[in-house]
Amino acid sequence: MWGRDYELKYISYPKSVAIIGASKTEGKVGYAIMKNLKDFNGKIYPINPKYDEIFGIKCYKSVLDVEDDIDLAVIVVPNIVVPKVLEECGKKGVKGAVIITAGFSEVGNYELENKIKEIAKRYNIRIIGPNCLGIMNTHINLNATFAKVFPPKGGVSIISQSGAVLNAILDIAPLLNIGFSKVVSIGNKADIQESDLLEYFLDDEDTKIVVLYIEGLKDKRFLKVAKKLSKKKPIIALKSGRTEVGKKAAKSHTGSLAGEDVIYEAAFKEAGIIRAYTFEELVDLIHLFSTQPTISSNEIGIITNAGGFGVLAADSCVDYNMKLSNFEKSTIEKLKNILPPTANISNPLDIIGDATPERYKKVIEVLAEDSNVKGLLVILTPQEMTKPLEVAKSIIEVKNSHKEFKNKPLITSFVGGVSVKGAKSYLRKNGIPAYITPENGVKALSHLYKYSLMKVKEDYDEYLENIKEEFIKITEENKEIIKELLSNPNEYTAKKLLSIYGLPVPKGYLAKNEDEALEYCKKLGKCVMKIVSPQIIHKTEAGGVIINPKNPKEAFKKLIENAKEYAKRMGIDNLIIEGVLVEEFIEKDMMEIIIGAKRDDIFGSVVMVGLGGVFVEVLKDVSFGISPITRDFAHEMLRELKSYKVLEGVRGRPKRDINFIVDTLIKIGVFMDIHKEIKELDLNPVFVFNEKEGGCIGDARIIK
Amino acid sequence: MWGRDYELKYISYPKSVAIIGASKTEGKVGYAIMKNLKDFNGKIYPINPKYDEIFGIKCYKSVLDVEDDIDLAVIVVPNIVVPKVLEECGKKGVKGAVIITAGFSEVGNYELENKIKEIAKRYNIRIIGPNCLGIMNTHINLNATFAKVFPPKGGVSIISQSGAVLNAILDIAPLLNIGFSKVVSIGNKADIQESDLLEYFLDDEDTKIVVLYIEGLKDKRFLKVAKKLSKKKPIIALKSGRTEVGKKAAKSHTGSLAGEDVIYEAAFKEAGIIRAYTFEELVDLIHLFSTQPTISSNEIGIITNAGGFGVLAADSCVDYNMKLSNFEKSTIEKLKNILPPTANISNPLDIIGDATPERYKKVIEVLAEDSNVKGLLVILTPQEMTKPLEVAKSIIEVKNSHKEFKNKPLITSFVGGVSVKGAKSYLRKNGIPAYITPENGVKALSHLYKYSLMKVKEDYDEYLENIKEEFIKITEENKEIIKELLSNPNEYTAKKLLSIYGLPVPKGYLAKNEDEALEYCKKLGKCVMKIVSPQIIHKTEAGGVIINPKNPKEAFKKLIENAKEYAKRMGIDNLIIEGVLVEEFIEKDMMEIIIGAKRDDIFGSVVMVGLGGVFVEVLKDVSFGISPITRDFAHEMLRELKSYKVLEGVRGRPKRDINFIVDTLIKIGVFMDIHKEIKELDLNPVFVFNEKEGGCIGDARIIK
Repeated sequence: MWGRDYELKYISYPKSVAIIGASKTEGKVGYAIMKNLKDFNGKIYPINPKYDEIFGIKCYKSVLDVEDDIDLAVIVVPNIVVPKVLEECGKKGVKGAVIITAGFSEVGNYELENKIKEIAKRYNIRIIGPNCLGIMNTHINLNATFAKVFPPKGGVSIISQSGAVLNAILDIAPLLNIGFSKVVSIGNKADIQESDLLEYFLDDEDTKIVVLYIEGLKDKRFLKVAKKLSKKKPIIALKSGRTEVGKKAAKSHTGSLAGEDVIYEAAFKEAGIIRAYTFEELVDLIHLFSTQPTISSNEIGIITNAGGFGVLAADSCVDYNMKLSNFEKSTIEKLKNILPPTANISNPLDIIGDATPERYKKVIEVLAEDSNVKGLLVILTPQEMTKPLEVAKSIIEVKNSHKEFKNKPLITSFVGGVSVKGAKSYLRKNGIPAYITPENGVKALSHLYKYSLMKVKEDYDEYLENIKEEFIKITEENKEIIKELLSNPNEYTAKKLLSIYGLPVPKGYLAKNEDEALEYCKKLGKCVMKIVSPQIIHKTEAGGVIINPKNPKEAFKKLIENAKEYAKRMGIDNLIIEGVLVEEFIEKDMMEIIIGAKRDDIFGSVVMVGLGGVFVEVLKDVSFGISPITRDFAHEMLRELKSYKVLEGVRGRPKRDINFIVDTLIKIGVFMDIHKEIKELDLNPVFVFNEKEGGCIGDARIIK
Repeated sequence: MWGRDYELKYISYPKSVAIIGASKTEGKVGYAIMKNLKDFNGKIYPINPKYDEIFGIKCYKSVLDVEDDIDLAVIVVPNIVVPKVLEECGKKGVKGAVIITAGFSEVGNYELENKIKEIAKRYNIRIIGPNCLGIMNTHINLNATFAKVFPPKGGVSIISQSGAVLNAILDIAPLLNIGFSKVVSIGNKADIQESDLLEYFLDDEDTKIVVLYIEGLKDKRFLKVAKKLSKKKPIIALKSGRTEVGKKAAKSHTGSLAGEDVIYEAAFKEAGIIRAYTFEELVDLIHLFSTQPTISSNEIGIITNAGGFGVLAADSCVDYNMKLSNFEKSTIEKLKNILPPTANISNPLDIIGDATPERYKKVIEVLAEDSNVKGLLVILTPQEMTKPLEVAKSIIEVKNSHKEFKNKPLITSFVGGVSVKGAKSYLRKNGIPAYITPENGVKALSHLYKYSLMKVKEDYDEYLENIKEEFIKITEENKEIIKELLSNPNEYTAKKLLSIYGLPVPKGYLAKNEDEALEYCKKLGKCVMKIVSPQIIHKTEAGGVIINPKNPKEAFKKLIENAKEYAKRMGIDNLIIEGVLVEEFIEKDMMEIIIGAKRDDIFGSVVMVGLGGVFVEVLKDVSFGISPITRDFAHEMLRELKSYKVLEGVRGRPKRDINFIVDTLIKIGVFMDIHKEIKELDLNPVFVFNEKEGGCIGDARIIK
């Protein structure tokens, strides 16, 4: 059975590696790679027509000259030579290639990149790169990179879109004793994408956690695979370019709010990916997740020999939604026997400036056994009597002798410089993170807690599935009508379209003349009249709305007049007026919200929600999700809004129909998934009535 | 001339120091201090009846036995002996004492602390401590502490309320090469407070920047002195206990929002103090401020050999309100000549993975001369060809040979571990901060920029002074009336009181019976009737408000009835009804805001402002200032509100009278300063009319 995973196995666990472009000249990449591969557990074959041997190993003119099978080729020849050597690899039956050579799509040379893609496809060679640092697998001493540092062996597998960022992480790894499994510099991603590797890591037993450095994805399978993987293994990601505003001019309100980064944020949330926002945070998280078990709640114990740092750590707990455990009664009794009488038994537990290694040890033992303490942060500052290294040793002793720490993360922060350097190294060497400050430690723990909470969305959600089915039926039935409505989207047709899918819109008719206006007004009773023109978006500003007209005929005339004046003012030529929408006037207790959607090239249908008025306009208080949106996730989207409490009713105001909003978010997601020709969608406002009373779409705009 | 400063000189620059409780026994504090004082430039006199000499230095039984003058006594005897030895110091004429001994007010022993206060006062001895780590002055090698580390000499003077936090900072100092001038562990602050030291640092030429670690102040002069000092020297503060909620139950809306920490926040802002929120940030800021000049704008240049970190740094610029400079044309030309043709000339400037020390040097030289670049961040990651130490040397060379760096901060971030350790040390040794990550560097620079912007409030503000004068006159004139009104504060009397000070309130009368109600309603036209009872705070909920009554007599009766029913429902006995307030109905285009005030023990009158409705209730979007509030500061308070744009008018809504709000904030501050018996004040709502139309106080509550 040949499959994608099988092919990746040849790249990650090759038995034989050819280095095409191997070199004897120091400073050359081909030299660095030869040097880095010297401890490789398998066979290596240098390829370079210039040499007979390199480092005493026989060198071949071409892979075709090698008698044995070659699993993996590492290619470092000049860019224009790559197609030729890749062709040879194909003929030789090489299974995978890591193309380190640069000078492809990253400098606009798409043609050359397409060429190698074509060759790879033809010969069924899987490719990493081009333009990358290479790959590593610590378990077989495979270092097919030109990096300076080969990290310790461990459970972290990393995929990085930047060789430099990867280098920085590898350089830090030995100091923190972070152990790696597979290291992949993914380069231009001509063939292998993040999703291929995530899929591979799913069943790779050596990989315990996955780290991603992303600059931009072009991988439509990413979300699906990440979702699957995060259920089994933590995924931690740093995405740069956070604050860059989407470059394409947005046409809708939703479009302008849905910058690239908020979409990534929504995608990560949906995929269950833990997001680091800075490089320091990334390293802190890798350190924690790679050494400690998960945490079962947010209640932690803090031990300190310095009251001040205890308070600073407690401050951080509030900042990051962590709590200080209430110690069990038996704990308090035990602590009283251990600590000096002046000590105050509380959490953070100040074990006082003269704390000995012995006291640290005893106190940690007691808290290890307290089932209210789900994780432990041990703080030390170097004071007169403090013996940092001895305390570090005590900590490691307790940790190794107490099985509780198999389910209870234990981290430290030895705050200082010269006096604590050795102790910190000792802790790290023995698998305990030692953070620069207690605040950093608490922050990292909070991510561990978030991971434990992260309800990775189930793909299956009965309600959602029903809606999908129902919507597909509706589309089939009304194919022609829908096509017609979508051919000319305006407020009237957009609402008609939505109403076909059962989304509530006000009763309304499109009046083409004064008489029709009168007729419809009579039919509806209290009503609103709105101009319908593709050129008039801000209807109110254009004088295009009249509420409860006394004389509908006059009102019709007035609306047309206003539209013409507005067009003149705004320099609109050839004004198209499609008529006047006459709609029932909604007179219920309600509040206004905004729902929107946008099509993203990578992630698909992105759905947005926010409260109307100043919340969206001034505070930009909106929340995003990616379709399919489950009920759970829709609720989460709402709870993320700073203004969420307004929906729940504050200070005597009524609670609104939150279920109606949830339904609408799910449906809009499915609607967008079906109608891929729609680029952006604004439902603004959506009226939300009181609890159990539903709601109604006040205005709708579709942009194709 | 004897003055406070003069006395502190004896403590900070003593010529002779007695160590009372000096010891030969290792492990004792009296031993550690003797050891730490061995390099002191002045004379030392060990005092201990048990010894004849310590470390070969003659030991005395009492300070009274020393023939020479003693400037400073360092006291480490047991707490109960402290009064006796202090008494002897007094008799000897010792000018200052550092009491290291613990066991005073911090453990509830107020009596003993008062005793030493009394002795100190009697003999005019200035005291630091008790319960502290001691003091240092690097300029005279004075280390009168039991700390393990004596930091390098430099311009940083530090006051710490925690010995442990101070120890941590001192321990880091040598690694970062942060130089200190005066180091003060301030302990229980029985005598010398932060303000005494800040005042001293004002004219201490060796002190260039001042650092504070604060757990809680009890120092009413702090704000005034800090304000003066921050105009001359940067003050950086870390305050712990940020998130602790004020423990006293608040009686007003303002009170409940004005937790301890927001008041500190307002005080720091007012004093021009730069606030660090975590220990890491504190150290990063000390590092920057102690080595680099100030920055003249927020435009910086970023140089990197790794694109990824350039983007991460750019992300941080947006996070922290920094900007990327537009390079001058000549800069771009020069860079083109230096960089390889594939390099993209932009900011962040990616000088590519193979950047040599020479390339770094040339590029820094070019940006040094670009007047658009106000500060420089140099990023390095260890890649194949990178020579971190050589790059570090190049940076120091350029820095030393280019006078531009006298006015242009230059910082670095060499991201990595093993490969960059040496380079980072080299940079730090030569006065260049080397941050763990580019993000940390940008964040620190943003504080430097904030400091440059910080308009430290002038004590003199003509407008404010006029109001003060005017208000004092008003008080004098209306002394009796004001006293009477304040004796029984309710909505009616509170509004009368505010109106005396010229604050706009609606026209209104207190009706005692139905006939009066009718009479006042006729007089006012459209009006509102509100119950006035000290027991009814939430008038609307109590059915205590009737708008535009058709039959005022009936309305009066109804209000009384409702009040009685409400009292019954709420279990209020002895309901006091003072009447019904009949007020003109304000019918202008307006929005509601909240203004409040609270008396703080340390900082005085704290004034709060926020927008009404959900902004305060749901988002807690409020801003604080401490009286006296200048016009500038009042504007700043408003601009700090997330909802500020609403006041300026969004999406076609009118701009409101911001000047009216500013006036009211200033006046409420002065009002609170005059009426010190008022503890809390709620003006909720305050109606703000459109621009230039003023406003009106809708409701007022005074809590004594």
